[in-house]
Amino acid sequence: MKKLRPRRSDKEEQNQQEQKETKEISGFRDYPLTVDKILTWASYAFPNNEIVYWPPGGSRASVTFSQFADRVRRVAAALMDLGLRSGKPWEFGSKIAVMEWDTLRYVDLFYAIPSIGSTLFTVNIRLAPHEVMYTMSIAKPDALVINIDDFEPFIKPILDNIKTIKLVIYMSDRSKGPSQDYGIKTVPYEELLKHEPLKEFPEIDERTPATMLFTSGTTGPPKGVYFTHRQLALHASSVTIALSYPPYNIGVKDVSMPLIPLFHVHGWGTPYVVMLSGTRKYVLPGRYDWGHILRLIHDEGVTYTGGVPTILYVLLTHPDSSKYDLRGLRFGNGGSAMPEGLYNAAKARGIIVASGYGMTETAPVLTMAYLRPEYLNWSEDEKKQLVLRTGLPIPLVQLRVVDEQDNDVPMDGKTIGELVVWSPWIAKEYLDDPEKTRNAWRNGWFHTGDVAVWFPDGYIFIVDRLKDVIKSGGEWISSVKLESIISTHPAVGEVAVIGVPHEKWGERPVAIVVPKPGERITEDEIRNYLMQFVGRGEIPKWWLPDKIIIVEAELPKTSTGKIDKKLLRDRFKDEFT
Amino acid sequence: MKKLRPRRSDKEEQNQQEQKETKEISGFRDYPLTVDKILTWASYAFPNNEIVYWPPGGSRASVTFSQFADRVRRVAAALMDLGLRSGKPWEFGSKIAVMEWDTLRYVDLFYAIPSIGSTLFTVNIRLAPHEVMYTMSIAKPDALVINIDDFEPFIKPILDNIKTIKLVIYMSDRSKGPSQDYGIKTVPYEELLKHEPLKEFPEIDERTPATMLFTSGTTGPPKGVYFTHRQLALHASSVTIALSYPPYNIGVKDVSMPLIPLFHVHGWGTPYVVMLSGTRKYVLPGRYDWGHILRLIHDEGVTYTGGVPTILYVLLTHPDSSKYDLRGLRFGNGGSAMPEGLYNAAKARGIIVASGYGMTETAPVLTMAYLRPEYLNWSEDEKKQLVLRTGLPIPLVQLRVVDEQDNDVPMDGKTIGELVVWSPWIAKEYLDDPEKTRNAWRNGWFHTGDVAVWFPDGYIFIVDRLKDVIKSGGEWISSVKLESIISTHPAVGEVAVIGVPHEKWGERPVAIVVPKPGERITEDEIRNYLMQFVGRGEIPKWWLPDKIIIVEAELPKTSTGKIDKKLLRDRFKDEFT
Repeated sequence: MKKLRPRRSDKEEQNQQEQKETKEISGFRDYPLTVDKILTWASYAFPNNEIVYWPPGGSRASVTFSQFADRVRRVAAALMDLGLRSGKPWEFGSKIAVMEWDTLRYVDLFYAIPSIGSTLFTVNIRLAPHEVMYTMSIAKPDALVINIDDFEPFIKPILDNIKTIKLVIYMSDRSKGPSQDYGIKTVPYEELLKHEPLKEFPEIDERTPATMLFTSGTTGPPKGVYFTHRQLALHASSVTIALSYPPYNIGVKDVSMPLIPLFHVHGWGTPYVVMLSGTRKYVLPGRYDWGHILRLIHDEGVTYTGGVPTILYVLLTHPDSSKYDLRGLRFGNGGSAMPEGLYNAAKARGIIVASGYGMTETAPVLTMAYLRPEYLNWSEDEKKQLVLRTGLPIPLVQLRVVDEQDNDVPMDGKTIGELVVWSPWIAKEYLDDPEKTRNAWRNGWFHTGDVAVWFPDGYIFIVDRLKDVIKSGGEWISSVKLESIISTHPAVGEVAVIGVPHEKWGERPVAIVVPKPGERITEDEIRNYLMQFVGRGEIPKWWLPDKIIIVEAELPKTSTGKIDKKLLRDRFKDEFT
Repeated sequence: MKKLRPRRSDKEEQNQQEQKETKEISGFRDYPLTVDKILTWASYAFPNNEIVYWPPGGSRASVTFSQFADRVRRVAAALMDLGLRSGKPWEFGSKIAVMEWDTLRYVDLFYAIPSIGSTLFTVNIRLAPHEVMYTMSIAKPDALVINIDDFEPFIKPILDNIKTIKLVIYMSDRSKGPSQDYGIKTVPYEELLKHEPLKEFPEIDERTPATMLFTSGTTGPPKGVYFTHRQLALHASSVTIALSYPPYNIGVKDVSMPLIPLFHVHGWGTPYVVMLSGTRKYVLPGRYDWGHILRLIHDEGVTYTGGVPTILYVLLTHPDSSKYDLRGLRFGNGGSAMPEGLYNAAKARGIIVASGYGMTETAPVLTMAYLRPEYLNWSEDEKKQLVLRTGLPIPLVQLRVVDEQDNDVPMDGKTIGELVVWSPWIAKEYLDDPEKTRNAWRNGWFHTGDVAVWFPDGYIFIVDRLKDVIKSGGEWISSVKLESIISTHPAVGEVAVIGVPHEKWGERPVAIVVPKPGERITEDEIRNYLMQFVGRGEIPKWWLPDKIIIVEAELPKTSTGKIDKKLLRDRFKDEFT
């Protein structure tokens, strides 16, 4: 039977057809830089590379990049089904708070949550409970994903205080469920992994917020920042390139187990970097247990790790340490300057150490102490002086060291100024804090609050946090430099130098020294030791600490494992009164 | 004297002040991905790395990256003073045609022209004069920068035909000036280098067209495409990462002299890649002279080069070749598949060869035959089979092999389909050719016009250009596969297999074979040789060429050094009639 159609409809159809054709004249599809692109590519390019999850006391699990991509697609699809939604350029959609150790599940979430346009809020589980609550009150998450084995006691107080949360997803290594009814929708993480995998990741603008996190708040309450897909992708790409430079030389053959918690500034970008680097194996140790970690380094053949100096110290001094051969292991240092004494101790074990630098607000990496080709033939001692510096900017980063008027200070390795930076991955703003934002972003440069010198060769060295630098008689004394020197004394275990209020000078330096286990040390020994460096012109005489206090207990640490100088300053504030 | 101002004006000033303050609440400065950022960073990070320019018959010149950045800033400032202007997102400002060999000046221009928002039009000087004129008539350049030592005869005809050109800048290795008055403003390039350097590069949107170039036009007139800053920067970053993978292993220690002319698809991105890779030395050989190039490889200690297979062939067969030790040299192959015979010959000299693939429309690199970590312990022969493939996608590239309905063909290494791709650096459109654009960009994927298979492991192999593939009795025969096999015969120098019209089968393969110098070969020998591969099941019997034609002359080449099959098809079109 022949269909009859009115002419008018024919005309309409023709119009529609023409419109469609016009629209399709260029079928060009723009390519947004979103983190799912890294995964889609890496699971094709390196499908057999491995991610190993082996928590202390638990069993070893391993997935290939290809299997991992499947997990992410399942979790992403499930999260969409649970009603979690995409944001827009510079605007949040759903925000998902995660409280977890370094697990495979966490790495899933580094891809799955942003891939659907939602924001991964990496809760700093090392903060004090009231601080965790404070960050949550600013972040206002829509959902909570939580390790129920270790953090269940947090659930009730969080739900009582943070009313935006409508969903709890719980994770367990022991198939554990919640021990009570929280009066809210709860879903086991394993359920998400059973969902049909997403075929195509949804199209997300590259400026959609992908992650949210908080500074560790050593100068006041933690401050929130967020990062877009574009920022994370470009950060990962530059870190990958810089890690290929000597002395890191990280490539496809490496086995990577950075000891930067994933809740601490994206674990320095590791979940994304291992994919771009083609890293043969990425090892996740769960909750940090040093005996277990040392065993993993050996059993999994780890070739690259990293963290704050304290972690290197622990790896070297742990009772089990001497059982293992650590030769050839590379350690990327960050968070604090690497004390020369610790460098030497690591070197004696055959570990290759190189520094890096960054901050929460910068995603984090800004500099790495890589070696220029012309330095490769230098002596070990000359190279040491370079890799102990804070480094050179990684690709695309611009930096300057400036005075209070934002003018460059001389590149003489001596004149101290504030480090200001510009790169594609610096936080746009502090959450709910326009004043702090305005104060950091001045004249088009982000002001780090770190005090540095730059050398004639362009390498920089962070001499202090602006808040830790000691102001004596209108001049600055670098606590970091003094600490590094004292750390080279063979009997010194830990050291902190702080500024203590002083009637005449404003502030004067005080050193707090912890001897190595079984060692004894006196104030005079340290003073005489420092005098040798004064004699060689390495530090001026007036930098010498007025007091050197020997203590037996370990120094207090912040949630990120750095020495808590705020607390020390408070404890010793009356030394000169 | 006290100035009196009406209250109203005070109020206005206050308003303005308030507006200013509001605007500055967030001082965040976005970071556009423009190519000047690569330079600004690299000249800080690797100031002492070197760029060497040593033309044949000329003298060696060398600048550091730091001096190079100064040159670029001078040229950029001078170009702005000469009235050249910035474009906008996806819109051209001034377009500057450059006709030049691989010189330091050309590398200056790869940064200087885009850095001011103008577009670098890299004229393919290997095209026939009428084709050059054709590309210029499409491009409509505002200025011409030209090597006057070699191309002065082009100036008058170009100016006669291309009326948009208002300025000629001439370059010479011999301080030569124009031999006549062209009735147009002419400026020596050396003058630009004397300009005060630009302090800050102007702010340019990252989607501003940075370069413009034309396909070599083997299927019709050359087609124009353009690339934005963002595309070039992301391309360079991904190529840098992929070059760090084995077997390339390119790092800061390398000396790079790719033999891809800079007018040919950005010299595969080399001017940008050497900066991101921190390459110790980048060598520019001027006009290609093979004896000179072999000497440069030796004298400058070149460790990495690359180009089309013909270039490797020339490096191996040049009369001077045997004088030099080429062990350890890496050769990145592209443009055409690497014939196995050529690979073996290079291997015998200790050269490490690995293939890559791309096209003008894709900036160009899409794949590289890098080795996954699990393959590193394979035998040399197994690895050879991988690096001879077209490779794996470089970071961020997505690809598929599809049938005519854009459905994936099986990943079996046998089923032939068209390669379609998506990456952040694919041309948005063909200049003045919406139909060709629409035809290439279909269903969100760019259709390469290349015929490929994909293996179960994800590696792809380009079996032919869609236009070169031989269609016999409704089935496809890969000319590339037949060529690769024939090339392994010890007496074969060059080979091309083409489809020739055939009454019964539509097309049948014909092989044109050039013996090695001093060798003799017969049709029967080649046929018997091919039969061994049929016997081993490597090719079906019906793929055997119906004719094998032995010729003594070198095969004709296109402007990019590939064998000109269009010309051969034309020459042998009547073989079966």
